[in-house]
Formats: sequence, C-alpha cells, structure tokens
Amino acid sequence: MKKYWFEILLVLTFVLSAVGHYGHWNSTLEFIMSAISVVFVAGFLGKATESVAHYAGQRLGGFLNATFGNAAELIIGIMLVRDGHFDMVKASITGSIMGNLLLVLGLSLFVGGLKYKIQNFNVTLAGLNGSLMILAVIALFIPAIFLQTHAINNEDKNMISLVVSGILIVAYLLWLVFSMVTHKKYLADVSVDTDEELAHEHAPVWSKGKSILYLIIATVMVAFVSEWLVDTLDTFTERFGLTEIFVGAFVVAIVGNAAEHSAAIMLALKNKIGASVEIAVGSSLQIALFVAPVLIFVSHIFGRPMDMVFSVIELAAIGVAVFIAKSITQDGSTNWYEGLLLLAVYAILGVSFYLV
Amino acid sequence: MKKYWFEILLVLTFVLSAVGHYGHWNSTLEFIMSAISVVFVAGFLGKATESVAHYAGQRLGGFLNATFGNAAELIIGIMLVRDGHFDMVKASITGSIMGNLLLVLGLSLFVGGLKYKIQNFNVTLAGLNGSLMILAVIALFIPAIFLQTHAINNEDKNMISLVVSGILIVAYLLWLVFSMVTHKKYLADVSVDTDEELAHEHAPVWSKGKSILYLIIATVMVAFVSEWLVDTLDTFTERFGLTEIFVGAFVVAIVGNAAEHSAAIMLALKNKIGASVEIAVGSSLQIALFVAPVLIFVSHIFGRPMDMVFSVIELAAIGVAVFIAKSITQDGSTNWYEGLLLLAVYAILGVSFYLV
Amino acid sequence: MKKYWFEILLVLTFVLSAVGHYGHWNSTLEFIMSAISVVFVAGFLGKATESVAHYAGQRLGGFLNATFGNAAELIIGIMLVRDGHFDMVKASITGSIMGNLLLVLGLSLFVGGLKYKIQNFNVTLAGLNGSLMILAVIALFIPAIFLQTHAINNEDKNMISLVVSGILIVAYLLWLVFSMVTHKKYLADVSVDTDEELAHEHAPVWSKGKSILYLIIATVMVAFVSEWLVDTLDTFTERFGLTEIFVGAFVVAIVGNAAEHSAAIMLALKNKIGASVEIAVGSSLQIALFVAPVLIFVSHIFGRPMDMVFSVIELAAIGVAVFIAKSITQDGSTNWYEGLLLLAVYAILGVSFYLV
Repeated sequence: MKKYWFEILLVLTFVLSAVGHYGHWNSTLEFIMSAISVVFVAGFLGKATESVAHYAGQRLGGFLNATFGNAAELIIGIMLVRDGHFDMVKASITGSIMGNLLLVLGLSLFVGGLKYKIQNFNVTLAGLNGSLMILAVIALFIPAIFLQTHAINNEDKNMISLVVSGILIVAYLLWLVFSMVTHKKYLADVSVDTDEELAHEHAPVWSKGKSILYLIIATVMVAFVSEWLVDTLDTFTERFGLTEIFVGAFVVAIVGNAAEHSAAIMLALKNKIGASVEIAVGSSLQIALFVAPVLIFVSHIFGRPMDMVFSVIELAAIGVAVFIAKSITQDGSTNWYEGLLLLAVYAILGVSFYLV
Repeated sequence: MKKYWFEILLVLTFVLSAVGHYGHWNSTLEFIMSAISVVFVAGFLGKATESVAHYAGQRLGGFLNATFGNAAELIIGIMLVRDGHFDMVKASITGSIMGNLLLVLGLSLFVGGLKYKIQNFNVTLAGLNGSLMILAVIALFIPAIFLQTHAINNEDKNMISLVVSGILIVAYLLWLVFSMVTHKKYLADVSVDTDEELAHEHAPVWSKGKSILYLIIATVMVAFVSEWLVDTLDTFTERFGLTEIFVGAFVVAIVGNAAEHSAAIMLALKNKIGASVEIAVGSSLQIALFVAPVLIFVSHIFGRPMDMVFSVIELAAIGVAVFIAKSITQDGSTNWYEGLLLLAVYAILGVSFYLV
Repeated sequence: MKKYWFEILLVLTFVLSAVGHYGHWNSTLEFIMSAISVVFVAGFLGKATESVAHYAGQRLGGFLNATFGNAAELIIGIMLVRDGHFDMVKASITGSIMGNLLLVLGLSLFVGGLKYKIQNFNVTLAGLNGSLMILAVIALFIPAIFLQTHAINNEDKNMISLVVSGILIVAYLLWLVFSMVTHKKYLADVSVDTDEELAHEHAPVWSKGKSILYLIIATVMVAFVSEWLVDTLDTFTERFGLTEIFVGAFVVAIVGNAAEHSAAIMLALKNKIGASVEIAVGSSLQIALFVAPVLIFVSHIFGRPMDMVFSVIELAAIGVAVFIAKSITQDGSTNWYEGLLLLAVYAILGVSFYLV
C-alpha cells in the first residue's frame, strides 16, 4: 500500500489537525499538528495545480504553475495580513527567500555534489534569474532606504508601496511572457530538463474533472489548515519565548516550502541540478515578485494597508542570500562545497535571528 | 529641406529661449524653452566636438571625444556650482548616471530586443567597464560612509573630497591611455563597431576651420542656454512643489543627456548594441570619473568648496543602477526583457525620488 | 656572500630590535627596528613552515601551509588580544584583507601587466575563491548589522561571535578538504603552477630535523619580536597623532604581510599570475576565515572576550575590497589597468582612514 501513503497521511494529519483545533488541545500540540498538515495539504495543492495545468495546455498551464506554485504561502500570507500580523508576514517572505536560496539550494548542491563530483546546468537562465533577483532586492531596498532617511507621511508610504508592488507584478508577468512565449526556445536547454523531469515526476493520474475538483478541495483544505496554524502562532511564539520574526522567518517559511524542498533535493540526487536550481531560485523569485506585492494589494482590500518597508535585518538577510546564491550559480557548475557555503550562511542567519 | 531641420530648430529654440529670458516671460515657459534649447545646443556641441576630434587625429581626437563628450553637463554643472546649488549638482550627477545606465541602456536593450531576438557584444570591454563602474561607486561611497560615521571638520572633509577627486581623474586619464593606446586592439571588437558607426553617423561635413569655429560657437551657446535654464530652476521647482533633488536628478539630467539617448537607441535599432552599451556606460563613467571630480575642483576655484558627500538616497540610486547594469551587461548578450528590468528599476527610483 | 644576505639581516635586525627593546631606546627607533625585524622573522617562519610541510607529505603539508601560512599575523594578533587592544586587532585584520586584495594583488597585476600585455589564469578557482570571500564578508557583516540595530546583552553578543567563528573555522577546514582532497585535480590547472612554483622557489635546503628545529626557533623569534613591536605601538601611535585603527590597518598589516607581498610580485613578473592571485586571495581568506575566528576563541581563553563586531568603516573597507577584487579576477584575465584600479581603491581607503 506504499502507493497510497501520501493520501493516507494527507487525510490523517488534516483530521487530527481539525480535531486539535476544534477540541482545543494543548496549543503546542495543535501547532505541531497543523504545521505537519500544512506540509501535506500544500503538497496536495501543488499536485492538483500541476494536474490542472497539464490539461490547460502548455501556455496557460505554465502560467498556472508559475503563479499558483506558491499558493500555500499566499494563502497563509493572506490569513496573516487579515489578522494584522504584518511583522510575521514580512518575516515569512524573508524566510521563504532565504529558505529557498540558502537551505533548499544549499542542500540540493550539497547532497547532489556528494554523489556527483561536478554538476552542470545552463548559465543563460542562471544569468537572467540573477538579474531578476537583483530587481527583487532593489524593489525591497529602495523604499526602505528612502523611507528610513526621510520623514514621510503614511499616505505617501502606502503610495510608494503600491506603485513598487505594481511594477513588480508587471515585471513578473512579463517574465512569464518572455520565458514561456518569446524566448522559450532560447532558454530550452534547462527548461526541457525541468519540464520533462517535472512531467515525469508528477504525470497526471487524475482525469480533467477530478483535477479541477481536487484543486478546489485542496485550496479549501489549505485555507482551513492555514487558519488553524495561524491561530496557534501567538501562543506558540509566547510559550517558547520566540520572536514573531524568528517564527515567521524559520518556522512558517520552512513549513510552507517543504514540498519544494523535497522535490529539489530528489532532482539533485538524479543529477538534474538545473531543475533543482530552477525550483529553488524560481520559487524565491515568485515569492519576491508575485506573492509579496499581491499581499500588499490584499492588505489594501482588507482596508488595513501593509507597507513594503522591511526591517534592516530582513533586508540584510535577503541581500546576502541573493548575493551569495548569485555568486555560486553564475558559472553553471556546482559541487558539494558550494552547497556547504550556502548552508553556512543559512546557519549564520539562523543564529542571528534566534538571538536577536 | 529635411536636411536642415536640425540647424533650423537649433537657431529657433536658441532665439526663443533668449527672448524668453531677456523678455522676462512666464518662468515656466522660459524653463521649457531653455530646456528644449539645451537639447539642441548640446547636440550641436557634440557634433562640433566630433568634427574637431576627426581632424585632431585618432589619439588626440579620441581624447577630445572622451573628455568633452559630456561638455554640456559640465557647463551646466559649473553654473550650478557657481550659484551654490550643491544639492542640485549632486542630484544631476546622480541623475546622469541613473539616466544613462537605466533609462538610455534600458530603452536601447528594450527596443533593440523587440526587433532582434538576441543581441550580442564583446564581453571583455563589458567586464572592464563593470570594474570601472565599481571604482566610481566606491569613490562616492567611501567618503560618505567615513564622514557620516565620524565627526570630521570641514577642512578634512574638503581634503578627502579633493584627494578622491584627484585619484578619480588620474584613473580616468589612465583609462584613456589603456583603452586608446596600450590595449586598443585588445578591445577592438567593440570599438571598431562603435568608431565605424559613429564615424558613419557623424562624418564631418565641415572643414577644419569651420569645425573649430563651430566648437567655439557651440560652447558659448551652451554656456548661455545653461545660464538661462539654471536661472529658471528656482521658480520652476517652487511652482510645481518639486524638490531640488528631483529636478536635478530627473529634469536636468534627462535634458542634458538627450543627445546620447537618441544616438544609443538608433544604434540599438541597427543591431549595433555594443555601441549603444558603449555610449550609455561610457557616458556614465565619464560623469562619475571626470565631470564630478572636475566640479569639485571648480568649486574650490570659485572659493566655495563643494564636498563629495552624496546623500544616502543618491548613493543608493547610483549603487543599484551600477549593480543591475553590471549584472545585465556582463554576459555580453541582451534581450528585450533585460531592457525592461532596467526600466523597472528606473521607474522605482523615479517614484521614490518624486515622493520623498 | 649574496646567498646569506637573508640570514645575516634576519639575525642583525633581531639583535638590534632586542637591544632597542631592552636598552629602552627612543621608542620611534624601537618601533622601526622591530617592524623591520618582523618582516624578516615572518619570512623565516614562512620558510621553516614550508620546509616542515615538505617533509610532512602532500596532504598534511598542504594543511600546514594553509593554516600556518599567516602564523606571524596570528601571533601578533594574540599579543594584541592579550593586551586588550581589540580595536587594533580588528583594524589589523581589516588591513590584512585590504592589503592582500588591493595592495598585493594590485601591485602584482600592475607590474605583471606592464611586462606582459594580458595575463591569464584558471577561472574555476577564481569563482570559488570569490564565493568564499563573500562568505567571509557576510560573516563579518551579519553580526554587525544585527547587533547595531538591536539592543543585545553582552552574553548574546559573545554567543553570536563564537557561533559565527565556529562556522567559519569549519567552513575553512572543509575548504581544505575540498581543495586538497576531493577536488584537487579539478582545481589543478592553477594549483600545479602554484605548487611547482612555490616548490621551486623554496625547495627545502634543510634536513627534516633542522626544519623542525628552525620552525620552533622561528616561532619563538616571531613571538619575541611581536611582543616588542606591540609594546611600542602605544607610544608610536600617540607621538605621531595616529589612530589605533590607522596603525593597525596600515602599519601592522603591511609589516605582517611583507613576505607575501614580495612573493606575489615576483611570481607576477614571471608571468605566473595565477600563483600571485592564489597568494593574495588565499592569504586574505585565511585571515578572514581562520585567523580572525581563532583570535575570537583565544580571547575567550584569556578570559577577556572580544566580539566580532567590526566598525562601519572597517566593514565598508572589507566590503569594497572584496567586491572590486571579485569583479576584477572573475574573468581569469588581467592587465595593468586592473592592477591600477585596485591600487586606486587602496589609496582612497588609505586617505580616508588617515583623516578619520
């Protein structure tokens, strides 16, 4: 019955998480249950998205994958924004970027590099990804630098945040046009690998109708579990004497990205390092250029505007993560030691966030 | 009479601008007239410089082009320094660098990329240009960082500014020696293109004597129009509620660089992207390594020393412009999306400067 | 007797330095004597280390060379830590990194480039070295940024410093494993050159027993001379109105690295630019990833903990040195102008440190 372990665990953790929530369990236990459950429902949502994308045809499908690939993070983010947990939202955005560029990429290069001496991938895409990451960093740094050195009223602060968010979303959508329409073949060396591999990994086992139904069910499940998880965060944070920032940047971010983590590492072990890099870098780009600006707009819809001003330590963390990931991926060749360097930076940031 | 449209507009706008100034027109109108006129007299000065350079022989000519290519900016800068508009001078230096690396380069890659899928150029020069840009950034950042973290008297502040300016000018002159004398052939792949193209574009139509005469006339015209433009800036800035920094960084800088803008875009459309990059990057290097330090020395001659300490937001703007331009140009291959990224960063900076 | 000039000068300067110290000479003279003597005893220690390393076999030998190559700096650092000169220790670490990446590398590229038009070396190692330098910069920046933006008690400050130091030492030791064991051949193009050249330069002339004896003698001599030098620093600093930071970053750092300086330049003149880069970059990595963290641990052993928080200007200096050195070395090809750029940055930093 190995085949059904995922489905069994999905339902089991979801039910236990629900029981924990409505039965008012000990909140630490409730936190643990819902955290584990998030990993499975996020995985289920990912599978359903890919299956629907498969039937939607190449272009619309690619678009669906690229915009809803981080749907779980987006839903958790919306819950946090609704409850006014702005610090935790920003910390979880920071944590997702760090987690993808340092932990996921680091582990992939490390374990892949232990098995294969040198792993290679297409540098053209790496170069473009690097420039997009720099755009993301600039978009986060500029408002923070301008707003921290000048007295600006809240209205202008929100205006800058909205305009910058709009620019990022447009840049992201045009990136999809560029990479999937106008220059698809140009970037093909890598994407063929990735697409093939992903297709092979997650070949749709469901019919079209079932896929759409599952997508709806998965989204509802993610919404519920996210709700329960967010509910426990206050008590959990307090009980263990952790800061909102640490919980957001490490706990929430790791839980929300667990599916990408395992996929990237599996691909690295199959010597498909290009696909691993694609997942890790692509996912952090999606967070920075799509999820984060959408959350800004969502906060305005909720009538409780969140600005785009990240704290100095969050900016520092994102900046160094992008900087070292760019340095390591730009030559298109990786080894275990480069993975270790990324993990070392992650450890340094982890200790610093923990002690602050 | 299409052939003479430039000459007609040059004289017409100059005359109207003069009438506006001495007739004490409405100052907004006067500002607009002199701004338009600057574009034409700067273009005329550029043509005359190239023509004289042509007769001066390859080396001296290259030197003339490389040092007086931004003569209009230099003259406007001297006027502003004389009147003590230090904030606006620094803002216009910042704006010239941003304008060249983000707007000019961005538009060139974008429109060139819409016409040609991929455009390529020599990476050797791109790498060296990148290192020179970093020198420029370091030279601007180091004094600012040292002076903002330590109490330093004005004398020492001016001393640092002068020494750093001297180092930059020496580095720039030696760059001319390197690129035009000792390693001319090594960098030839690109410069041949550029030289040829520029020679073809602006083949001297004037005799030697006429060229020198026109150079003198053009310089005088630029001086007058700059004077008139600078005169209107105070009223203009006030009337529209703009800051000196915004006007310097966007209005003055765009007006002063209009000639380079159109040349670079034309070359991109002819698939001479290497020459476009040369103009955009070369022009911003000239501003940072030659015009800016010369203005520091000029301010000392005027007996009213300007220091080299740029504000945090100016440094941030220059830093990010250099960083993303370097990332995008370093692989020697460009496409429309890379142009768009540069324009996105320009837009983010524009909004931020406007609202601050 | 040209053959023995080194031995004669070694003994002579050591004796004069001792006489100066115990005879309570004029302290400026004492400072000069011990500074000159440090250059010779550090050179002697370097030779003895290499000779012992030769007999220890390739791996253990490589390890010895890589960890004790900066033994003189380490010993001087320990003396300074013992006396609580924390500012000077940090300044001398900063100065060693700047000195190696800007002065040594700059002079090597410059003089090598005057003799040979273009010099080339293996870029694989350059890329990895670049990523390691970024790790070093991150490890120094993160604690400083976190600690300067948050109120943190001393205990946590020391904890962060110790953990980060531990991570750096582990990263450095694994780098030795990577470069000397698992990927030795992969990096061979350069290291062959370097090893051969170094072997040729410093072929062991001493027997095994003599080598070990000399290593012990040299270490003791370095310890004494360092002691005498450190003793004079206070008076010297005061008499010339210099800051502890300037003396640490320029005087102590240049004296302690003199041996590497001359070796790197000699190799550049023999067109072995890869080996020069190796020495300069390798030495600065050793300082940042090994010497600095070891000094943190040593300070705890002395019961007077030093933290890892460098000042803003030191961080700026290290950051820009790494940034421009990485930009210049990443294409694997060098020329005189790139050397000049490094020297220009060194000059800008020198003036700034002097005037602050």
